Amino acid sequence: MVVQPFSEGSQSQIMNAVQPASLIATLAGTLPDGGLLTADEDLARYSRDWSGDHFGRPLAVARPASVEEMSALMRRCNEERIPVVPQGGLTGLVGAAVAADSGEVVISLERLNRIRSVSPIDFAMVVEAGCILEDAKRAAEENDCLLPITFGAQGSCRIGGNVATNAGGFNVLRYGMTRDLVLGLEVVLADGRVWNGLKVLRKDNRGYDLKQVFIGSEGTLGIVTAAALKLYPRPTQIETALIGLRSVEEAMALYARARRDCSDLLTAFELILRGGIEITLQARPDFADPLARPYPVYVLVEVSSGGLVDLQAMLRDFLAGAADLVEDGVMASSRAQGERLWLYREIMVERQGRGGRYLRTDVSVPISKLADFVTDALAALERTRPDALAVTYGHVGDGNIHLNVVPPEGMAAEAVEHLFEEAEEQIFAIVDRYAGSISAEHGIGRVKQKAFLDRIDPVALDLAAGIKDAFDPRRILSNGRILASKSSLDYR
Amino acid sequence: MVVQPFSEGSQSQIMNAVQPASLIATLAGTLPDGGLLTADEDLARYSRDWSGDHFGRPLAVARPASVEEMSALMRRCNEERIPVVPQGGLTGLVGAAVAADSGEVVISLERLNRIRSVSPIDFAMVVEAGCILEDAKRAAEENDCLLPITFGAQGSCRIGGNVATNAGGFNVLRYGMTRDLVLGLEVVLADGRVWNGLKVLRKDNRGYDLKQVFIGSEGTLGIVTAAALKLYPRPTQIETALIGLRSVEEAMALYARARRDCSDLLTAFELILRGGIEITLQARPDFADPLARPYPVYVLVEVSSGGLVDLQAMLRDFLAGAADLVEDGVMASSRAQGERLWLYREIMVERQGRGGRYLRTDVSVPISKLADFVTDALAALERTRPDALAVTYGHVGDGNIHLNVVPPEGMAAEAVEHLFEEAEEQIFAIVDRYAGSISAEHGIGRVKQKAFLDRIDPVALDLAAGIKDAFDPRRILSNGRILASKSSLDYR
Repeated sequence: MVVQPFSEGSQSQIMNAVQPASLIATLAGTLPDGGLLTADEDLARYSRDWSGDHFGRPLAVARPASVEEMSALMRRCNEERIPVVPQGGLTGLVGAAVAADSGEVVISLERLNRIRSVSPIDFAMVVEAGCILEDAKRAAEENDCLLPITFGAQGSCRIGGNVATNAGGFNVLRYGMTRDLVLGLEVVLADGRVWNGLKVLRKDNRGYDLKQVFIGSEGTLGIVTAAALKLYPRPTQIETALIGLRSVEEAMALYARARRDCSDLLTAFELILRGGIEITLQARPDFADPLARPYPVYVLVEVSSGGLVDLQAMLRDFLAGAADLVEDGVMASSRAQGERLWLYREIMVERQGRGGRYLRTDVSVPISKLADFVTDALAALERTRPDALAVTYGHVGDGNIHLNVVPPEGMAAEAVEHLFEEAEEQIFAIVDRYAGSISAEHGIGRVKQKAFLDRIDPVALDLAAGIKDAFDPRRILSNGRILASKSSLDYR
Repeated sequence: MVVQPFSEGSQSQIMNAVQPASLIATLAGTLPDGGLLTADEDLARYSRDWSGDHFGRPLAVARPASVEEMSALMRRCNEERIPVVPQGGLTGLVGAAVAADSGEVVISLERLNRIRSVSPIDFAMVVEAGCILEDAKRAAEENDCLLPITFGAQGSCRIGGNVATNAGGFNVLRYGMTRDLVLGLEVVLADGRVWNGLKVLRKDNRGYDLKQVFIGSEGTLGIVTAAALKLYPRPTQIETALIGLRSVEEAMALYARARRDCSDLLTAFELILRGGIEITLQARPDFADPLARPYPVYVLVEVSSGGLVDLQAMLRDFLAGAADLVEDGVMASSRAQGERLWLYREIMVERQGRGGRYLRTDVSVPISKLADFVTDALAALERTRPDALAVTYGHVGDGNIHLNVVPPEGMAAEAVEHLFEEAEEQIFAIVDRYAGSISAEHGIGRVKQKAFLDRIDPVALDLAAGIKDAFDPRRILSNGRILASKSSLDYR
């Protein structure tokens, strides 16, 4: 189930099998009017994810508007063994949040979207799971703070999804993953009980840190309804530069120096291979080649700070000191210019697939192996699939590369499928050789499950299954994501 | 069992009850010669912790020298249901690592003390659990890196204990707790299986992040044998200042400004009330009052960075801009002078108890409540126990205060016990009022178990017990720490 086409036929078979009328009556009683959607036209927008790659028509969509409603809903689902899948902004890339073919009720977080509090003195905010990330970021900014989670989908993704997937993004280098920014959680458990772990304490060693178990568990262990998040001071200065380099090796050498010279003020260090810049140039004729001539490799560097540091001088001195590596570069002279430099990267990401499907990978290796990984993986693809376009970019300060594969135009669907399988297998084999991860930030969901289970140490699998059994003994929560599905659909 | 006096009588009863001869024969077979200590004189140094407050004579001390030996040992202990307690440097403050009265085998990590690798390019090192923190820090420094975990006991504590207790310290403000610095773990499970989660990847979202479950679990879920740790660039500049202020409120106002003005280059912001400075002055006549006249409140501020920032100017400009708050202050003009400023804090910590016992607390509240907490707690103690000396200091950037209570000299042991109970109850009641934590960084162990269990949400307790059951079904690992003991000593 890498990519499943939408099929009306198989959907209606499921609808019959689970007797939706009685299911709907069961759930409707737990929510006020309007809380449960069942009409075909209402379900459509909960059935397809943002990438367009994954579909799954839910049995129904429940939209609790309070923790109490969520609790009542889950109590009932657990009693009746009704499988559910919590759903945020549907921007995940591993097919975790759309309903499974076996029949699931989607629990949308969209009505639980309040910002409960922002405290600039505590450098903390409490946000409900359905709050859109950009709204939370804006509320932080209005309080002169920074919520550092930053990535392309921030205008659509929701905080609960960020927590459930331990979202990464551009600024992990400095501020960490979502996990590192969570101070506390409120979670509705599989059986409807509420675990109130919301707190804005920055240090708390009272026994097991339960929130860690929920973060990154992709909705399989509980439904996050609110999160207390760590904030940072809003930077008063941001400096951005786009640098042209001879090779990925030299980009990594530049990173090593940036890490030291820019202290902990380095916010982003993004690698883009020439092919990525060309995608932007082709897609947007209003964008000129950013440097005087083309380079095989580019990095986008960003530093930020408060007012008492001469940040521009720091970045300039750093680049001047790296003249042996830096072939050419441009430093933004205004915020607007800095944002325009970022567009070279953002447009590339949006347009890399030429509007069609492409293979996304999201791998990590030790930083010291990153250049070798890129070299080996691109050589392998070039050797076996010279017809495909490899697009390479990533958060190299985190050792995280997105090496995506775009099929030749006009290729038949079956051949595309074969290309994706072959290319993914090749890339993952090289990841294995460098003791890397087949999922650095996107998670496992359903799309990467096979590759994950093929590689997992049986001891780790046992421990994970033990946690799943303890937290969701009836396996009603996002069954079949991360861990293999156990059939427990005995609610018919 | 807050503080248990050593009692030969009760020890020998246990020794009889568990038939040590057969126990020793059982274990000796799993380890090479010298791996198992059983003689009274050999056990002494594994029986008493660093604070001198907690004692517990083990049934025997096992000292595996490899992961394989640890694995074989645990397999046997699990089969025979022999309760064990892993032991690092014995510097913990909650009585978790000494043997329980009910009879336990201590598993010392001291022979598993290698530094397996240091990679400055990956900013990572792999260290065995028995390695002393200071040795690990030195190895990082030799590679021009910083392992940021820093606190008083660093010359004695061991990495495994740091991980098991999620150790905090002076630099949490900038670098986080030990949890934030762990990239991977190798753990021997209760049944002897080895979970190999060692890796130096900075991003890895492959399913549940199992290492999080072990970090901070105080040896109750598995025995950490090695950790991959995140390193930072070794700072080339460090600036330190000691500032005199009028009140804790103003110290917190200064912190709020420091957080913004010093960007993320602020490494420490330590609060010391006047009483603490006086302890140092009394203990060490070679130390002068640090500022021209005494102030009710002091803060020790440290910033650090690489070479391309004018760090001294930053700190000076920050202090100049806070002239409305800063009454007086001294900025160290050399590293040696900076270290001497730190001694005012370190000597106070060592000498606060006048060589005798004192009540330690380690609480946290939201940063915005910290000044109110200190005011209320000191007023309550002054009202009810004017005879006792309250010593107040802490890592206020983390909302973490150590409010310790020293009994009057010559007070009888029973009265001291009563004083401690009364004072702790008062302090914890105020912590509760501000939604704080009764253990910010020391953990729960046995000393804080009652206060912890009195306050824990039953839902949280259920989840924690579920994890314990899944990871250690026979309850042989550090039984009775954090969670209440379940009697399962059926190995007789």
